[in-house]
Amino acid sequence: MATNGSGSPAKKIKKMELGSNGEATEEDPETQKTLEEIDKCQNEIDALNEKASEEILGIERNYNRLKKPHFEKRNDIIKKIPNFWVTTFVNHPQLSPLIDDEEVDCLQYITKIEVEDFENIKFGFKINFYFEEGNPYIENEVLTKEFSMGNNGEHKSTSTTISWKKDQNLCQKKKKDAKPTNSRKRGFEEQKKFFDWFADNEDPQGDDIADIIKDDIWPNPLQYYLVPDVDGDENGMEDEGESEGEEGEGGDDDDIGDEEEIEGEEGDEGEEGEEDE
Amino acid sequence: MATNGSGSPAKKIKKMELGSNGEATEEDPETQKTLEEIDKCQNEIDALNEKASEEILGIERNYNRLKKPHFEKRNDIIKKIPNFWVTTFVNHPQLSPLIDDEEVDCLQYITKIEVEDFENIKFGFKINFYFEEGNPYIENEVLTKEFSMGNNGEHKSTSTTISWKKDQNLCQKKKKDAKPTNSRKRGFEEQKKFFDWFADNEDPQGDDIADIIKDDIWPNPLQYYLVPDVDGDENGMEDEGESEGEEGEGGDDDDIGDEEEIEGEEGDEGEEGEEDE
Repeated sequence: MATNGSGSPAKKIKKMELGSNGEATEEDPETQKTLEEIDKCQNEIDALNEKASEEILGIERNYNRLKKPHFEKRNDIIKKIPNFWVTTFVNHPQLSPLIDDEEVDCLQYITKIEVEDFENIKFGFKINFYFEEGNPYIENEVLTKEFSMGNNGEHKSTSTTISWKKDQNLCQKKKKDAKPTNSRKRGFEEQKKFFDWFADNEDPQGDDIADIIKDDIWPNPLQYYLVPDVDGDENGMEDEGESEGEEGEGGDDDDIGDEEEIEGEEGDEGEEGEEDE
Repeated sequence: MATNGSGSPAKKIKKMELGSNGEATEEDPETQKTLEEIDKCQNEIDALNEKASEEILGIERNYNRLKKPHFEKRNDIIKKIPNFWVTTFVNHPQLSPLIDDEEVDCLQYITKIEVEDFENIKFGFKINFYFEEGNPYIENEVLTKEFSMGNNGEHKSTSTTISWKKDQNLCQKKKKDAKPTNSRKRGFEEQKKFFDWFADNEDPQGDDIADIIKDDIWPNPLQYYLVPDVDGDENGMEDEGESEGEEGEGGDDDDIGDEEEIEGEEGDEGEEGEEDE
Protein backbone atom coordinates (compact mmCIF):
# COMPACT_ATOMS: atom_id res chain seq x y z
CA MET A 1 0.00 0.00 0.00
CA ALA A 2 0.99 3.54 -0.69
CA THR A 3 4.40 2.52 -1.93
CA ASN A 4 4.36 4.64 -5.05
CA GLY A 5 3.61 8.31 -5.33
CA SER A 6 4.75 9.16 -1.82
CA GLY A 7 5.10 12.88 -1.60
CA SER A 8 3.09 13.52 -4.74
CA PRO A 9 0.45 16.22 -4.68
CA ALA A 10 -3.19 15.65 -5.42
CA LYS A 11 -2.84 16.10 -9.16
CA LYS A 12 -0.18 13.45 -9.49
CA ILE A 13 -2.41 10.96 -7.79
CA LYS A 14 -5.26 11.79 -10.08
CA LYS A 15 -3.12 11.22 -13.12
CA MET A 16 -1.68 8.06 -11.74
CA GLU A 17 -5.10 6.54 -11.37
CA LEU A 18 -6.59 7.77 -14.59
CA GLY A 19 -5.63 7.49 -18.22
CA SER A 20 -4.71 10.63 -20.13
CA ASN A 21 -8.32 11.32 -21.06
CA GLY A 22 -9.70 10.08 -17.81
CA GLU A 23 -11.23 6.90 -19.19
CA ALA A 24 -11.35 4.06 -16.71
CA THR A 25 -10.76 1.64 -19.56
CA GLU A 26 -7.20 2.88 -19.89
CA GLU A 27 -6.21 1.47 -16.50
CA ASP A 28 -3.72 -1.36 -16.63
CA PRO A 29 -5.45 -4.74 -17.01
CA GLU A 30 -4.78 -5.80 -13.40
CA THR A 31 -6.29 -2.62 -11.93
CA GLN A 32 -9.13 -2.79 -14.42
CA LYS A 33 -9.98 -6.29 -13.25
CA THR A 34 -9.89 -5.19 -9.61
CA LEU A 35 -12.14 -2.23 -10.37
CA GLU A 36 -14.60 -4.58 -11.98
CA GLU A 37 -14.58 -6.70 -8.84
CA ILE A 38 -15.36 -3.63 -6.77
CA ASP A 39 -18.13 -2.72 -9.15
CA LYS A 40 -19.62 -6.19 -8.88
CA CYS A 41 -19.54 -5.95 -5.12
CA GLN A 42 -21.12 -2.51 -5.39
CA ASN A 43 -23.97 -3.96 -7.43
CA GLU A 44 -24.66 -6.49 -4.68
CA ILE A 45 -24.79 -3.68 -2.14
CA ASP A 46 -27.06 -1.64 -4.39
CA ALA A 47 -29.40 -4.60 -4.83
CA LEU A 48 -29.69 -4.91 -1.05
CA ASN A 49 -30.36 -1.19 -0.80
CA GLU A 50 -33.11 -1.57 -3.32
CA LYS A 51 -34.66 -4.45 -1.40
CA ALA A 52 -34.48 -2.43 1.83
CA SER A 53 -36.12 0.45 0.05
CA GLU A 54 -38.95 -1.76 -1.19
CA GLU A 55 -39.60 -3.08 2.30
CA ILE A 56 -39.58 0.41 3.76
CA LEU A 57 -42.04 1.58 1.14
CA GLY A 58 -44.24 -1.39 2.03
CA ILE A 59 -44.25 -0.36 5.68
CA GLU A 60 -45.05 3.22 4.84
CA ARG A 61 -47.86 2.10 2.57
CA ASN A 62 -49.23 -0.09 5.36
CA TYR A 63 -49.10 2.66 7.96
CA ASN A 64 -50.63 5.14 5.57
CA ARG A 65 -53.55 2.74 5.37
CA LEU A 66 -53.70 2.43 9.15
CA LYS A 67 -53.47 6.18 9.67
CA LYS A 68 -56.12 7.04 7.10
CA PRO A 69 -59.20 6.49 9.33
CA HIS A 70 -57.55 8.58 12.05
CA PHE A 71 -56.93 11.41 9.62
CA GLU A 72 -60.54 11.16 8.50
CA LYS A 73 -61.76 11.23 12.08
CA ARG A 74 -59.51 14.21 12.74
CA ASN A 75 -61.01 16.00 9.75
CA ASP A 76 -64.52 15.33 11.04
CA ILE A 77 -63.67 16.84 14.40
CA ILE A 78 -61.85 19.77 12.83
CA LYS A 79 -65.03 20.64 10.93
CA LYS A 80 -66.60 21.63 14.23
CA ILE A 81 -64.12 24.46 14.66
CA PRO A 82 -64.82 27.45 12.42
CA ASN A 83 -61.83 28.71 10.46
CA PHE A 84 -59.57 25.95 11.70
CA TRP A 85 -57.63 25.57 8.46
CA VAL A 86 -57.32 29.22 7.53
CA THR A 87 -56.18 30.00 11.08
CA THR A 88 -53.63 27.22 10.88
CA PHE A 89 -52.33 28.55 7.57
CA VAL A 90 -52.22 32.13 8.76
CA ASN A 91 -50.42 31.09 11.95
CA HIS A 92 -47.75 29.14 10.07
CA PRO A 93 -44.60 31.29 9.93
CA GLN A 94 -43.79 30.35 6.34
CA LEU A 95 -47.31 30.30 4.90
CA SER A 96 -48.45 33.45 6.64
CA PRO A 97 -46.72 35.95 4.32
CA LEU A 98 -48.13 34.06 1.36
CA ILE A 99 -51.75 34.76 2.16
CA ASP A 100 -53.18 38.21 1.64
CA ASP A 101 -56.36 39.58 3.21
CA GLU A 102 -58.69 38.69 0.37
CA GLU A 103 -57.29 35.18 0.27
CA VAL A 104 -57.89 34.86 3.99
CA ASP A 105 -61.54 35.67 3.31
CA CYS A 106 -61.69 33.02 0.65
CA LEU A 107 -59.75 30.37 2.60
CA GLN A 108 -62.21 30.68 5.46
CA TYR A 109 -64.52 28.58 3.36
CA ILE A 110 -62.18 25.60 3.43
CA THR A 111 -64.04 22.89 5.33
CA LYS A 112 -61.58 20.05 4.87
CA ILE A 113 -58.06 19.35 3.70
CA GLU A 114 -56.71 15.97 2.70
CA VAL A 115 -53.16 14.98 1.91
CA GLU A 116 -53.02 11.63 0.15
CA ASP A 117 -49.92 9.73 -0.84
CA PHE A 118 -50.14 7.64 -3.98
CA GLU A 119 -50.46 3.92 -3.36
CA ASN A 120 -46.78 3.76 -4.28
CA ILE A 121 -45.80 6.72 -2.17
CA LYS A 122 -42.59 7.46 -3.97
CA PHE A 123 -44.56 8.36 -7.08
CA GLY A 124 -46.39 11.29 -5.58
CA PHE A 125 -49.17 12.77 -3.54
CA LYS A 126 -52.08 15.13 -3.79
CA ILE A 127 -53.62 17.79 -1.61
CA ASN A 128 -57.37 18.33 -1.67
CA PHE A 129 -58.89 21.59 -0.46
CA TYR A 130 -62.65 21.30 0.08
CA PHE A 131 -64.70 24.49 -0.07
CA GLU A 132 -68.00 25.18 1.60
CA GLU A 133 -70.88 25.08 -0.81
CA GLY A 134 -72.37 28.48 -1.53
CA ASN A 135 -69.21 30.38 -0.67
CA PRO A 136 -68.91 33.69 -2.52
CA TYR A 137 -65.59 32.89 -4.23
CA ILE A 138 -65.28 29.45 -5.78
CA GLU A 139 -67.65 27.16 -7.62
CA ASN A 140 -65.55 24.00 -7.28
CA GLU A 141 -66.34 21.77 -4.35
CA VAL A 142 -62.74 20.63 -4.17
CA LEU A 143 -59.49 22.00 -5.49
CA THR A 144 -56.78 19.39 -5.94
CA LYS A 145 -53.10 19.92 -6.51
CA GLU A 146 -51.19 16.79 -7.39
CA PHE A 147 -47.45 16.15 -7.52
CA SER A 148 -46.21 13.10 -9.32
CA MET A 149 -43.09 11.50 -10.70
CA GLY A 150 -43.07 9.50 -13.87
CA ASN A 151 -41.08 6.30 -14.34
CA ASN A 152 -38.46 8.38 -16.10
CA GLY A 153 -37.96 10.36 -12.89
CA GLU A 154 -39.61 13.47 -14.33
CA HIS A 155 -41.53 15.54 -11.80
CA LYS A 156 -44.80 17.20 -12.67
CA SER A 157 -47.71 18.86 -10.98
CA THR A 158 -51.27 19.52 -11.99
CA SER A 159 -54.03 21.48 -10.32
CA THR A 160 -57.77 21.91 -10.68
CA THR A 161 -58.75 24.86 -12.84
CA ILE A 162 -60.44 27.18 -10.39
CA SER A 163 -63.92 28.15 -11.36
CA TRP A 164 -64.15 31.62 -9.78
CA LYS A 165 -67.49 33.21 -9.14
CA LYS A 166 -68.24 36.45 -10.99
CA ASP A 167 -65.65 39.16 -10.29
CA GLN A 168 -63.98 37.05 -7.63
CA ASN A 169 -60.92 35.77 -9.44
CA LEU A 170 -58.30 36.52 -6.79
CA CYS A 171 -55.38 35.78 -9.12
CA GLN A 172 -56.59 38.28 -11.71
CA LYS A 173 -57.62 40.84 -9.12
CA LYS A 174 -54.17 40.90 -7.66
CA LYS A 175 -52.56 41.43 -11.02
CA LYS A 176 -54.91 44.30 -11.73
CA ASP A 177 -54.37 45.84 -8.31
CA ALA A 178 -50.64 45.50 -8.36
CA LYS A 179 -49.96 47.30 -11.62
CA PRO A 180 -51.71 50.63 -11.86
CA THR A 181 -51.58 51.83 -8.26
CA ASN A 182 -49.47 51.14 -5.27
CA SER A 183 -52.23 51.48 -2.74
CA ARG A 184 -52.01 48.14 -0.94
CA LYS A 185 -50.66 48.54 2.54
CA ARG A 186 -48.70 45.38 3.22
CA GLY A 187 -46.09 45.86 0.53
CA PHE A 188 -45.67 42.25 -0.55
CA GLU A 189 -47.61 42.46 -3.80
CA GLU A 190 -44.71 41.02 -5.75
CA GLN A 191 -44.60 37.80 -3.73
CA LYS A 192 -46.42 34.76 -4.99
CA LYS A 193 -49.74 34.37 -3.24
CA PHE A 194 -51.61 31.26 -2.22
CA PHE A 195 -53.78 30.92 -5.31
CA ASP A 196 -50.88 31.78 -7.60
CA TRP A 197 -49.00 28.90 -6.00
CA PHE A 198 -52.02 26.67 -6.44
CA ALA A 199 -52.42 27.47 -10.13
CA ASP A 200 -48.72 27.48 -11.01
CA ASN A 201 -47.34 24.16 -12.26
CA GLU A 202 -44.23 25.47 -13.96
CA ASP A 203 -41.67 24.21 -11.44
CA PRO A 204 -43.06 21.15 -9.67
CA GLN A 205 -39.79 19.97 -8.13
CA GLY A 206 -38.94 21.13 -4.66
CA ASP A 207 -42.22 22.94 -4.10
CA ASP A 208 -41.67 24.35 -0.60
CA ILE A 209 -45.28 25.28 -0.06
CA ALA A 210 -46.55 21.82 -0.92
CA ASP A 211 -43.90 20.36 1.37
CA ILE A 212 -44.96 22.61 4.24
CA ILE A 213 -48.57 21.57 3.86
CA LYS A 214 -47.73 17.91 3.43
CA ASP A 215 -44.89 17.39 5.89
CA ASP A 216 -45.44 20.06 8.50
CA ILE A 217 -49.07 21.15 8.69
CA TRP A 218 -50.85 17.93 7.75
CA PRO A 219 -48.96 15.70 10.23
CA ASN A 220 -49.93 18.03 13.08
CA PRO A 221 -52.05 21.09 12.25
CA LEU A 222 -53.10 21.66 15.85
CA GLN A 223 -49.71 23.00 16.85
CA TYR A 224 -50.12 25.85 14.35
CA TYR A 225 -53.77 26.43 15.07
CA LEU A 226 -52.90 26.94 18.73
CA VAL A 227 -49.61 28.76 18.40
CA PRO A 228 -49.79 31.78 16.13
CA ASP A 229 -46.83 33.08 14.20
CA VAL A 230 -45.11 35.11 16.94
CA ASP A 231 -43.48 37.33 14.37
CA GLY A 232 -45.32 40.63 14.14
CA ASP A 233 -48.13 39.62 16.43
CA GLU A 234 -49.15 41.49 19.53
CA ASN A 235 -49.58 38.32 21.59
CA GLY A 236 -46.29 37.90 23.40
CA MET A 237 -46.12 34.11 23.24
CA GLU A 238 -43.08 32.33 24.62
CA ASP A 239 -43.13 29.12 22.68
CA GLU A 240 -39.97 29.48 20.69
CA GLY A 241 -37.21 28.47 23.08
CA GLU A 242 -38.78 25.14 23.94
CA SER A 243 -38.26 23.34 20.68
CA GLU A 244 -34.52 23.97 20.49
CA GLY A 245 -32.48 21.08 19.22
CA GLU A 246 -35.52 19.41 17.71
CA GLU A 247 -36.40 19.31 14.07
CA GLY A 248 -39.51 21.38 14.61
CA GLU A 249 -42.03 18.64 14.04
CA GLY A 250 -43.08 17.96 17.58
CA GLY A 251 -46.18 19.77 18.57
CA ASP A 252 -46.19 17.78 21.78
CA ASP A 253 -45.63 20.98 23.66
CA ASP A 254 -49.17 22.02 22.96
CA ASP A 255 -50.80 19.75 25.47
CA ILE A 256 -54.35 20.69 25.84
CA GLY A 257 -55.88 17.95 27.87
CA ASP A 258 -54.08 15.42 29.96
CA GLU A 259 -53.51 12.85 27.25
CA GLU A 260 -50.34 10.87 27.32
CA GLU A 261 -47.42 12.43 25.51
CA ILE A 262 -46.29 10.40 22.56
CA GLU A 263 -43.35 11.32 20.42
CA GLY A 264 -44.06 10.50 16.83
CA GLU A 265 -41.57 12.43 14.81
CA GLU A 266 -39.54 9.67 13.27
CA GLY A 267 -42.22 8.02 11.22
CA ASP A 268 -42.66 11.12 9.17
CA GLU A 269 -39.01 11.56 8.51
CA GLY A 270 -38.77 8.17 6.95
CA GLU A 271 -41.44 9.18 4.50
CA GLU A 272 -39.87 12.46 3.65
CA GLY A 273 -36.69 10.80 2.57
CA GLU A 274 -38.49 8.67 0.05
CA GLU A 275 -40.46 11.33 -1.69
CA ASP A 276 -37.61 13.60 -2.64
CA GLU A 277 -36.56 11.15 -5.31
CA MET B 1 -68.71 26.83 8.63
CA ALA B 2 -67.08 30.17 8.14
CA THR B 3 -70.19 32.01 9.14
CA ASN B 4 -68.51 34.46 11.42
CA GLY B 5 -65.58 36.70 10.70
CA SER B 6 -66.27 36.95 6.99
CA GLY B 7 -64.20 39.75 5.62
CA SER B 8 -61.92 39.90 8.65
CA PRO B 9 -58.20 40.10 8.08
CA ALA B 10 -55.66 37.62 9.40
CA LYS B 11 -55.25 39.29 12.76
CA LYS B 12 -58.93 39.16 13.56
CA ILE B 13 -58.96 35.45 12.96
CA LYS B 14 -56.02 34.93 15.21
CA LYS B 15 -57.71 36.82 18.00
CA MET B 16 -60.97 35.07 17.49
CA GLU B 17 -59.34 31.69 17.96
CA LEU B 18 -57.08 32.61 20.82
CA GLY B 19 -57.62 34.12 24.22
CA SER B 20 -56.17 37.55 24.92
CA ASN B 21 -52.85 36.09 26.05
CA GLY B 22 -52.89 33.30 23.51
CA GLU B 23 -53.56 30.50 25.98
CA ALA B 24 -55.53 27.63 24.54
CA THR B 25 -57.17 27.13 27.90
CA GLU B 26 -59.07 30.37 27.45
CA GLU B 27 -61.08 28.99 24.55
CA ASP B 28 -64.75 28.55 25.24
CA PRO B 29 -65.52 25.15 26.82
CA GLU B 30 -67.08 23.70 23.67
CA THR B 31 -64.08 24.58 21.48
CA GLN B 32 -61.72 23.43 24.21
CA LYS B 33 -63.40 20.03 24.26
CA THR B 34 -63.19 19.78 20.48
CA LEU B 35 -59.51 20.70 20.54
CA GLU B 36 -58.92 17.95 23.07
CA GLU B 37 -60.63 15.51 20.73
CA ILE B 38 -58.34 16.58 17.92
CA ASP B 39 -55.35 16.20 20.22
CA LYS B 40 -56.42 12.70 21.19
CA CYS B 41 -56.75 11.79 17.54
CA GLN B 42 -53.34 13.32 16.94
CA ASN B 43 -51.84 11.11 19.63
CA GLU B 44 -53.22 8.04 17.88
CA ILE B 45 -51.63 9.18 14.62
CA ASP B 46 -48.34 9.88 16.39
CA ALA B 47 -48.38 6.44 17.98
CA LEU B 48 -48.76 4.88 14.53
CA ASN B 49 -45.93 7.03 13.23
CA GLU B 50 -43.77 5.77 16.04
CA LYS B 51 -44.60 2.16 15.28
CA ALA B 52 -43.84 2.74 11.60
CA SER B 53 -40.56 4.31 12.58
CA GLU B 54 -39.65 1.33 14.75
CA GLU B 55 -40.37 -1.09 11.91
CA ILE B 56 -38.35 0.96 9.47
CA LEU B 57 -35.42 1.04 11.87
CA GLY B 58 -35.70 -2.73 12.17
CA ILE B 59 -35.46 -3.11 8.41
CA GLU B 60 -32.50 -0.81 8.21
CA ARG B 61 -30.78 -2.71 10.99
CA ASN B 62 -31.44 -5.96 9.20
CA TYR B 63 -30.09 -4.72 5.88
CA ASN B 64 -27.09 -3.17 7.56
CA ARG B 65 -26.32 -6.68 8.80
CA LEU B 66 -26.84 -8.14 5.34
CA LYS B 67 -24.70 -5.49 3.67
CA LYS B 68 -21.83 -5.78 6.14
CA PRO B 69 -20.07 -8.78 4.53
CA HIS B 70 -20.32 -7.08 1.14
CA PHE B 71 -18.74 -3.93 2.51
CA GLU B 72 -16.00 -6.06 4.05
CA LYS B 73 -15.43 -7.85 0.78
CA ARG B 74 -15.35 -4.50 -1.00
CA ASN B 75 -12.74 -3.27 1.46
CA ASP B 76 -10.60 -6.36 0.83
CA ILE B 77 -10.68 -5.77 -2.92
CA ILE B 78 -10.05 -2.05 -2.52
CA LYS B 79 -6.84 -2.86 -0.64
CA LYS B 80 -5.38 -4.15 -3.90
CA ILE B 81 -5.56 -0.68 -5.44
CA PRO B 82 -2.88 1.69 -4.16
CA ASN B 83 -4.16 5.06 -3.00
CA PHE B 84 -7.77 4.14 -3.57
CA TRP B 85 -9.14 6.08 -0.61
CA VAL B 86 -6.95 9.16 -0.88
CA THR B 87 -7.76 9.38 -4.59
CA THR B 88 -11.45 9.05 -3.84
CA PHE B 89 -11.24 11.83 -1.25
CA VAL B 90 -9.18 14.10 -3.49
CA ASN B 91 -11.59 13.52 -6.37
CA HIS B 92 -14.64 14.39 -4.30
CA PRO B 93 -15.70 17.95 -5.17
CA GLN B 94 -16.49 18.88 -1.57
CA LEU B 95 -13.68 17.05 0.20
CA SER B 96 -11.00 18.05 -2.28
CA PRO B 97 -10.49 21.63 -1.03
CA LEU B 98 -10.27 20.28 2.51
CA ILE B 99 -7.14 18.24 1.91
CA ASP B 100 -3.80 19.97 1.52
CA ASP B 101 -0.68 18.46 -0.03
CA GLU B 102 0.85 17.19 3.20
CA GLU B 103 -2.42 15.62 4.20
CA VAL B 104 -2.58 13.88 0.83
CA ASP B 105 0.81 12.37 1.64
CA CYS B 106 -0.46 11.18 4.98
CA LEU B 107 -3.84 9.93 3.73
CA GLN B 108 -2.09 7.72 1.19
CA TYR B 109 -1.39 5.38 4.07
CA ILE B 110 -5.08 4.73 4.65
CA THR B 111 -5.59 1.06 3.88
CA LYS B 112 -9.18 0.73 4.93
CA ILE B 113 -12.21 2.81 5.84
CA GLU B 114 -15.26 1.55 7.67
CA VAL B 115 -18.53 3.33 8.31
CA GLU B 116 -20.54 1.57 10.98
CA ASP B 117 -24.01 2.47 12.17
CA PHE B 118 -24.81 1.77 15.78
CA GLU B 119 -27.00 -1.27 16.38
CA ASN B 120 -29.80 1.23 16.89
CA ILE B 121 -28.92 3.32 13.89
CA LYS B 122 -30.71 6.42 15.02
CA PHE B 123 -28.30 6.77 17.89
CA GLY B 124 -25.21 7.25 15.80
CA PHE B 125 -22.37 5.91 13.70
CA LYS B 126 -18.61 5.85 13.56
CA ILE B 127 -16.00 6.11 10.85
CA ASN B 128 -12.78 4.12 11.16
CA PHE B 129 -9.69 5.14 9.19
CA TYR B 130 -7.05 2.38 9.20
CA PHE B 131 -3.45 3.42 8.58
CA GLU B 132 -0.66 1.31 7.15
CA GLU B 133 1.75 0.14 9.80
CA GLY B 134 5.14 1.83 9.60
CA ASN B 135 3.80 4.93 7.87
CA PRO B 136 5.86 8.05 8.57
CA TYR B 137 3.01 10.09 10.06
CA ILE B 138 0.77 8.31 12.53
CA GLU B 139 1.37 5.72 15.25
CA ASN B 140 -2.29 4.70 15.66
CA GLU B 141 -3.42 1.71 13.65
CA VAL B 142 -6.92 3.13 13.44
CA LEU B 143 -8.41 6.58 13.90
CA THR B 144 -12.07 6.57 14.82
CA LYS B 145 -14.50 9.45 14.77
CA GLU B 146 -17.85 8.69 16.35
CA PHE B 147 -21.11 10.64 16.26
CA SER B 148 -23.78 9.78 18.76
CA MET B 149 -27.01 11.03 20.17
CA GLY B 150 -27.97 10.56 23.78
CA ASN B 151 -31.47 9.70 24.97
CA ASN B 152 -31.98 13.38 25.71
CA GLY B 153 -31.43 14.14 22.03
CA GLU B 154 -28.06 15.74 22.63
CA HIS B 155 -25.54 15.23 19.83
CA LYS B 156 -21.91 14.63 20.52
CA SER B 157 -18.81 13.44 18.73
CA THR B 158 -15.55 11.97 19.90
CA SER B 159 -12.38 11.12 18.02
CA THR B 160 -9.20 9.16 18.65
CA THR B 161 -6.35 11.30 19.91
CA ILE B 162 -3.87 11.14 17.06
CA SER B 163 -0.45 9.94 18.07
CA TRP B 164 1.70 11.79 15.54
CA LYS B 165 5.23 10.61 14.81
CA LYS B 166 8.05 13.02 15.68
CA ASP B 167 7.70 16.38 13.89
CA GLN B 168 4.78 15.12 11.83
CA ASN B 169 1.83 16.70 13.60
CA LEU B 170 -0.01 18.08 10.58
CA CYS B 171 -2.45 20.10 12.67
CA GLN B 172 0.36 21.92 14.50
CA LYS B 173 2.47 22.29 11.37
CA LYS B 174 -0.31 24.04 9.57
CA LYS B 175 -0.85 26.47 12.39
CA LYS B 176 2.86 27.26 12.42
CA ASP B 177 3.02 27.64 8.65
CA ALA B 178 -0.05 29.76 8.35
CA LYS B 179 0.89 32.50 10.75
CA PRO B 180 4.37 33.88 10.08
CA THR B 181 4.56 33.70 6.29
CA ASN B 182 2.11 33.63 3.47
CA SER B 183 4.14 31.40 1.23
CA ARG B 184 1.66 28.57 0.55
CA LYS B 185 0.46 28.65 -3.01
CA ARG B 186 -3.10 27.37 -2.83
CA GLY B 187 -4.49 30.17 -0.71
CA PHE B 188 -6.93 28.22 1.42
CA GLU B 189 -4.87 28.17 4.62
CA GLU B 190 -7.76 29.55 6.65
CA GLN B 191 -10.08 26.70 5.75
CA LYS B 192 -10.43 23.78 8.12
CA LYS B 193 -8.32 20.87 6.92
CA PHE B 194 -8.97 17.17 7.11
CA PHE B 195 -7.17 16.48 10.39
CA ASP B 196 -8.60 19.62 11.96
CA TRP B 197 -12.03 18.28 11.13
CA PHE B 198 -11.08 14.90 12.55
CA ALA B 199 -9.87 16.34 15.85
CA ASP B 200 -12.59 18.96 16.27
CA ASN B 201 -15.59 17.84 18.31
CA GLU B 202 -16.96 21.26 19.16
CA ASP B 203 -19.98 21.21 16.88
CA PRO B 204 -21.07 17.62 16.29
CA GLN B 205 -24.49 18.39 14.84
CA GLY B 206 -24.80 18.71 11.10
CA ASP B 207 -21.21 17.76 10.37
CA ASP B 208 -21.15 18.06 6.59
CA ILE B 209 -17.85 16.25 6.19
CA ALA B 210 -18.97 13.25 8.20
CA ASP B 211 -22.18 13.19 6.19
CA ILE B 212 -20.27 13.26 2.91
CA ILE B 213 -18.10 10.34 3.97
CA LYS B 214 -21.02 8.38 5.40
CA ASP B 215 -23.80 9.07 2.91
CA ASP B 216 -21.99 9.84 -0.30
CA ILE B 217 -18.54 8.27 -0.42
CA TRP B 218 -19.08 5.13 1.65
CA PRO B 219 -22.22 3.98 -0.23
CA ASN B 220 -20.32 4.18 -3.53
CA PRO B 221 -16.67 5.27 -3.45
CA LEU B 222 -15.92 3.93 -6.91
CA GLN B 223 -17.79 6.74 -8.63
CA TYR B 224 -15.39 9.27 -7.09
CA TYR B 225 -12.30 7.14 -7.55
CA LEU B 226 -13.06 6.98 -11.26
CA VAL B 227 -14.40 10.46 -11.86
CA PRO B 228 -12.10 13.17 -10.60
CA ASP B 229 -13.33 16.56 -9.49
CA VAL B 230 -13.62 18.26 -12.90
CA ASP B 231 -13.23 21.65 -11.36
CA GLY B 232 -9.72 22.96 -11.88
CA ASP B 233 -8.42 19.80 -13.45
CA GLU B 234 -6.82 19.57 -16.86
CA ASN B 235 -8.67 16.39 -17.77
CA GLY B 236 -11.66 17.58 -19.77
CA MET B 237 -14.17 15.08 -18.46
CA GLU B 238 -17.77 15.27 -19.61
CA ASP B 239 -19.57 13.59 -16.78
CA GLU B 240 -21.54 16.48 -15.42
CA GLY B 241 -24.52 16.78 -17.72
CA GLU B 242 -25.55 13.17 -17.36
CA SER B 243 -26.84 13.27 -13.83
CA GLU B 244 -29.21 16.16 -14.36
CA GLY B 245 -32.51 15.89 -12.59
CA GLU B 246 -31.19 13.19 -10.27
CA GLU B 247 -30.26 13.66 -6.67
CA GLY B 248 -26.60 13.06 -7.39
CA GLU B 249 -26.36 9.66 -5.75
CA GLY B 250 -26.28 7.45 -8.78
CA GLY B 251 -22.84 6.34 -9.72
CA ASP B 252 -24.37 3.88 -12.14
CA ASP B 253 -22.98 5.89 -14.98
CA ASP B 254 -19.53 4.61 -14.20
CA ASP B 255 -19.99 1.20 -15.69
CA ILE B 256 -16.71 -0.52 -15.91
CA GLY B 257 -17.52 -4.06 -16.81
CA ASP B 258 -20.73 -5.35 -18.25
CA GLU B 259 -22.50 -5.99 -14.96
CA GLU B 260 -26.18 -5.42 -14.81
CA GLU B 261 -27.21 -1.92 -13.86
CA ILE B 262 -29.01 -1.79 -10.57
CA GLU B 263 -30.47 1.36 -9.13
CA GLY B 264 -30.01 1.38 -5.41
CA GLU B 265 -30.45 4.93 -4.30
CA GLU B 266 -33.59 4.71 -2.23
CA GLY B 267 -32.35 2.45 0.50
CA ASP B 268 -29.81 4.99 1.56
CA GLU B 269 -32.26 7.82 1.65
CA GLY B 270 -34.41 6.06 4.15
CA GLU B 271 -31.43 5.85 6.45
CA GLU B 272 -30.46 9.45 6.03
CA GLY B 273 -33.83 10.62 7.17
CA GLU B 274 -33.52 8.78 10.44
CA GLU B 275 -30.13 10.02 11.50
CA ASP B 276 -30.80 13.70 11.33
CA GLU B 277 -32.85 13.47 14.52
